[in-house]
Amino acid sequence: MSQTREIAERLAWVGVDWGSSNLRAWALDAHGEVLARAGSERGMLSLAPSDYEATLLSTIGDWLPADGRVPVRICGMAGARQGWREAAYLPVPTRLDGLARGAVRPAVEGPRLDVALLPGLCQHPDDAGRRFDVMRGEETQLAGLVAREGEASGPVCLPGTHAKWARLEAGAVTRFATFLTGELYQWLAGQSVLRHSLNHGQGEDDLAEPGDHQAFVAAVQEVAAAPESFGNRLFGLRAQDLLDGDLPSGQARGARLAARLSGLVIGLELAGARAVLTEGETVTLVGAEALCTRYALALEAQGIDCRRVDGETAVLAGLGLAHASLSHAPGACPP
Amino acid sequence: MSQTREIAERLAWVGVDWGSSNLRAWALDAHGEVLARAGSERGMLSLAPSDYEATLLSTIGDWLPADGRVPVRICGMAGARQGWREAAYLPVPTRLDGLARGAVRPAVEGPRLDVALLPGLCQHPDDAGRRFDVMRGEETQLAGLVAREGEASGPVCLPGTHAKWARLEAGAVTRFATFLTGELYQWLAGQSVLRHSLNHGQGEDDLAEPGDHQAFVAAVQEVAAAPESFGNRLFGLRAQDLLDGDLPSGQARGARLAARLSGLVIGLELAGARAVLTEGETVTLVGAEALCTRYALALEAQGIDCRRVDGETAVLAGLGLAHASLSHAPGACPP
Repeated sequence: MSQTREIAERLAWVGVDWGSSNLRAWALDAHGEVLARAGSERGMLSLAPSDYEATLLSTIGDWLPADGRVPVRICGMAGARQGWREAAYLPVPTRLDGLARGAVRPAVEGPRLDVALLPGLCQHPDDAGRRFDVMRGEETQLAGLVAREGEASGPVCLPGTHAKWARLEAGAVTRFATFLTGELYQWLAGQSVLRHSLNHGQGEDDLAEPGDHQAFVAAVQEVAAAPESFGNRLFGLRAQDLLDGDLPSGQARGARLAARLSGLVIGLELAGARAVLTEGETVTLVGAEALCTRYALALEAQGIDCRRVDGETAVLAGLGLAHASLSHAPGACPP
Repeated sequence: MSQTREIAERLAWVGVDWGSSNLRAWALDAHGEVLARAGSERGMLSLAPSDYEATLLSTIGDWLPADGRVPVRICGMAGARQGWREAAYLPVPTRLDGLARGAVRPAVEGPRLDVALLPGLCQHPDDAGRRFDVMRGEETQLAGLVAREGEASGPVCLPGTHAKWARLEAGAVTRFATFLTGELYQWLAGQSVLRHSLNHGQGEDDLAEPGDHQAFVAAVQEVAAAPESFGNRLFGLRAQDLLDGDLPSGQARGARLAARLSGLVIGLELAGARAVLTEGETVTLVGAEALCTRYALALEAQGIDCRRVDGETAVLAGLGLAHASLSHAPGACPP
């Protein structure tokens, strides 16, 4: 039996995380086991509503059996107003086992797909320090924590382009904050005046050199202690490259300064996130390994305990929770 | 008599501010009066050392008399290591009437130009809170304050792509700090995720609407009070655009959010600069009118007095001070 036929025979549903710039899809059996993975670089920013079905079919078409409708559960920007169809934001506080209540079904022309788009979360300002904020995709990773651990509580950090910090209480998101950290780093390292001084491959070597490790941690501490110095310390990397006789030369020099830049942007984020942390709490880090390692170092330097959950594991568990809700109460998501 | 001939007959020297991305030149008579202005988009980043003389001649050639050598005094990135010829940084503290002592003469093939490149300033870390920093060009504007006012003292702010804060004491720069403010703003408004929410023409209307004015000042105050929230408040502009029913629509909406972004980046800079300000001091703002107006508003909101000096006036006075030094003590700048 071919691998493709085996997938089609065991396929129970498909999970999709469809972001601004790409999509990742998983073929799952009835027990939630991953049968196959697929992806595409066609994200929300490059698609019109009428493009989504064909893009999805070209990505996962090989998995589908010859007949029958396959449930497809999608989180992320495909549910944005500029996406396939809008799945309106649910305002916090929101129970994470209830995301399916906000799901919508986009128009699908073919007979093979039963598609539901999950909603994101939004937050309005209040006297308790909440600010305007939105997320699409990360709420499903948070739901994955609930799916795996029941009434999950405590602070959760999801590092990335737009890093999220969320507070969970008994399985609900009660507040969250987004930081522009990853996007800021990419620009500073690759396009700003600092590009002349940095290696751009940051993150790949994961602070392999002891000096890079020290530079990263020192930068975290400096900005956490004096966040108002952030803009000055950024330019300071350029000045240090021009003036500091103690820096290594060549590739190692750029790596050292890149480690320091990474520490500055993550340190500023931690300083901001501390405002919503309670002393002694353990932070749950959800995401890719290299980035979570860096955040764990930064948190440790600040005396904050953390534990880690793999990002793919979390999103699959969250999609599975929503899939179970939609399967058991199909009326909850009107066509 | 043609205008060109009049310039050539009265011309005593030429001042040039040659930056990374452009150059500005002034024809001056013996009393320092501006006879003409010229400019070019050919800055240090687009020139090899051998290109400078031809670029200068194509910009100011019309001003030159038929015979005789004309003194040309140049500040800015043309004196960087990657420029025409390196005029090594002078370390702070440095008396600003002594910049000419660090001037160098690049190789010039033609007989008509007597060129001197002025040095920039550098700073090394110390226990008094100084950090690695460099400037090239702004030191000449600071020298202009000394030329106009004698033993100038106090804090000086030069807004811009890389905004500078310098402390003057009795005509010397004792410390300074650079902030990436302008470059950060341009990226955030034009290229980051916020570009979808902002009008890019910021600065042109100069907060003409009362609501924009209020949004700018509120953002300054918020970040100055909680600089650690900077990264979160940046993303908050995007969320506000998606969620805030009280924002105006259309062009006015983008202008409101751009005013707020401007307040966030300037507020972060002020928070950092306050660390080197003494209570009750008056800040001297040197630069272009629209940007200085914005900084004056931000300083006022923070209860800090300021006064203003036009940027062109300052750089011309500084170039003039260096020109006088070089003319009276030509040996100070060896060929």
